[in-house]
Amino acid sequence: MNLHIVYEVLDLVGTFAFAISGAVAARQRRLDLFGIFSVAFMVACGGGIVRDVCIGATPPVALSDWRYLATSILASMVTIAAYAKVRRLRFPVLFFDAVGLGLFAVSGAQKSLTYGHSAELAILMGMVTAVGGGVIRDMLLSRVPAILAREIYASAALLGAIVFVASAKMGAVSAWTPWCATIACVGVRLLALHYGWRLPVYRGPKARRGQSVSE
Amino acid sequence: MNLHIVYEVLDLVGTFAFAISGAVAARQRRLDLFGIFSVAFMVACGGGIVRDVCIGATPPVALSDWRYLATSILASMVTIAAYAKVRRLRFPVLFFDAVGLGLFAVSGAQKSLTYGHSAELAILMGMVTAVGGGVIRDMLLSRVPAILAREIYASAALLGAIVFVASAKMGAVSAWTPWCATIACVGVRLLALHYGWRLPVYRGPKARRGQSVSE
Amino acid sequence: MNLHIVYEVLDLVGTFAFAISGAVAARQRRLDLFGIFSVAFMVACGGGIVRDVCIGATPPVALSDWRYLATSILASMVTIAAYAKVRRLRFPVLFFDAVGLGLFAVSGAQKSLTYGHSAELAILMGMVTAVGGGVIRDMLLSRVPAILAREIYASAALLGAIVFVASAKMGAVSAWTPWCATIACVGVRLLALHYGWRLPVYRGPKARRGQSVSE
Repeated sequence: MNLHIVYEVLDLVGTFAFAISGAVAARQRRLDLFGIFSVAFMVACGGGIVRDVCIGATPPVALSDWRYLATSILASMVTIAAYAKVRRLRFPVLFFDAVGLGLFAVSGAQKSLTYGHSAELAILMGMVTAVGGGVIRDMLLSRVPAILAREIYASAALLGAIVFVASAKMGAVSAWTPWCATIACVGVRLLALHYGWRLPVYRGPKARRGQSVSE
Repeated sequence: MNLHIVYEVLDLVGTFAFAISGAVAARQRRLDLFGIFSVAFMVACGGGIVRDVCIGATPPVALSDWRYLATSILASMVTIAAYAKVRRLRFPVLFFDAVGLGLFAVSGAQKSLTYGHSAELAILMGMVTAVGGGVIRDMLLSRVPAILAREIYASAALLGAIVFVASAKMGAVSAWTPWCATIACVGVRLLALHYGWRLPVYRGPKARRGQSVSE
Repeated sequence: MNLHIVYEVLDLVGTFAFAISGAVAARQRRLDLFGIFSVAFMVACGGGIVRDVCIGATPPVALSDWRYLATSILASMVTIAAYAKVRRLRFPVLFFDAVGLGLFAVSGAQKSLTYGHSAELAILMGMVTAVGGGVIRDMLLSRVPAILAREIYASAALLGAIVFVASAKMGAVSAWTPWCATIACVGVRLLALHYGWRLPVYRGPKARRGQSVSE
C-alpha cells in the first residue's frame, strides 16, 4: 500500500471535516457567502499553512494545490445546502472537529519528519496543524480560543502526534501507524467530550468576581 | 515604459492609501502616536508580509525596504495633521481602502508570478495582499473582520487578481494590464459600496435571536 | 567572553521573564493547564517565531530547540506554584515584561544582523521579537493590544534595538553592548511606568462619546 497516497487522502479528509466545522461556525455568525468560504478554508488549512511556513515548505501546499481550496468550498456548499440537517445532529461541529483533529495531528507530524526535522518539532507541528485552524477561527471571530479554556482538545492532538512520532522514531511505521495514532487522538477527544474530562483550572481571587473566559 | 517601475509605484501608492485608512481607524480608537504608526504600517504592509512569507520571498520587502515604512509614517502624519478634513469627507476610509485594494490585488498577483508560482497561487496571493492588512487591522482592534460579513470587498480583490493573472497567462501583459485590473477591482468595490451590493447571507434560526456579527 | 553564549543566555532569560508574564495573564483569565502553558509559550516565543519566519531562519529556533519550550513550561509551573506570591508583588507582570522586552529587543536585532540583513530590518526585528509575543497574547485573549494605546512600551524596545544596531554598525560591539542596550530599554520602560510617560494621543469627536479602547 502506497503510504504517500494514504497521507494525501488523510489530509483531504481532514480538510473536509475541518471545513465543515468552520462553515457551521461562520453560518451561525451570519457571515456572507465569501465569509463562509473564507472561514471554512482558514479553519481547514490555517494550521497547515502555519506548519509549512515554519518548516520552510513554501509555498504552503494548501495554497498551491487547488484540491485543498476545492475541498473547502465543497464542504461549505454541503454545509449550506444541508444546514438544517447538520444543525439537528447534536454535536456536528464537535464531531467533525475531533476527526479533523486526529487526521491533521498525524499528517502534520508526518510532513515535518519527511522534511528531516527533529522529533520535537514534528510533535509541535502535528499539534499546530491540528489546532491552528481552530485558533485562527476563534481569533477571526473575536473570541478567546476554545482550546485554551475548555475540555481536552489540544492535548488529544498532542497525544496523536506523539504516538505517530514515537512509532516513526522506533522504526515501527506501517500502513496502520497513522490510523492508530489518529484513532488514539479522536478517541480521547470524543471520550473527553462525553465525560466532560478537563485539565485542571486554577481558580484564584479573580474567579470569584464572576469573570468568565467566554466573555 | 519600464514595467518594474510601474509595479514599484503601484505598491507605494497602495501603501499610502492603505496606511491612511489604517491611521484613520487607529485615530478613531484613540490609540497613541505609536499605535497609529503601527496600525497604519500593518494595514499597509501586513498583507504583503504574509504574501512574501508564503511565497518564500524572505525577508519581506515591506520590512527590508525603508520606503514602505517611510510611506506609512508619512501617511499617518498627513492623517493626524489633516484629520478634521479627512473626517469631513464622507467615505475617506472606504475610498482609500478601495484604491489600495485594487493596487495591491494586482501587485500581489504580479509578484507571485514573478517568483514562478502557479496561476492559482498568484490569484490567492493577490487577494491576500489586498485584504490581509484589513483583516490584521480588525484582529488587532478586536472585531470580526469586516470583509467576512459586509459588502463585496474581497470578491473585488479576487476579480482584480483574476483579470491580471488571466491576461498574464494568455501572454497579454502590457503596460495597461495592471491598470485595467486595478480599475476593474476599484470600480466593482465602489459600485458595491454605492448600491449596497452584497453576497448572499444565510439567515438561520440563530439570526432570529438578535445575535449580531458586530458583537 | 564568548558572545554567542551571552546571546543564548539572554534569550533564555528573556523567555523565562516573558513566560511568567504570559502565565500570570492566562491564570487571571482562568485558562486551563494547557492554556497556561500555551499562552506562556506564545508570549515568550511568538515574537521570535515571527522574526525567524521573516528573516528566513526556518524552522524557528523556539520550535526546534527544546530549551525554549522547557523554559516556558518551567516558568508556568513556577507561576502556578507561587501564584499567591507573584500576585502580591504589585507589578510582577509589568516588571517581568520590561525585562523580557529589553532582552528580546537586543537578541532579536542581533540575530537579524547575524543573518546578514540590513540595519533597518534588524531594528524592526528587534522590536517585533520584543513586542510580538505580547501582541499575540492580547489577540488570543481578544483585547486590543496594550502596546497600541498605553504607556511607552514598543518605543522602549525600539530604543534598545537602535542602541544595539547603531553600536554594531559603528563597529563598537563589545561584551557590554547588549547589556547597555538592554538596560537602556528596561530603564526607559520602568521610568515610563513609574512616571506615567505616554506618547501623545489625539482625542477627536469620537472620544467624547465615552468610547474606550479597553472595551
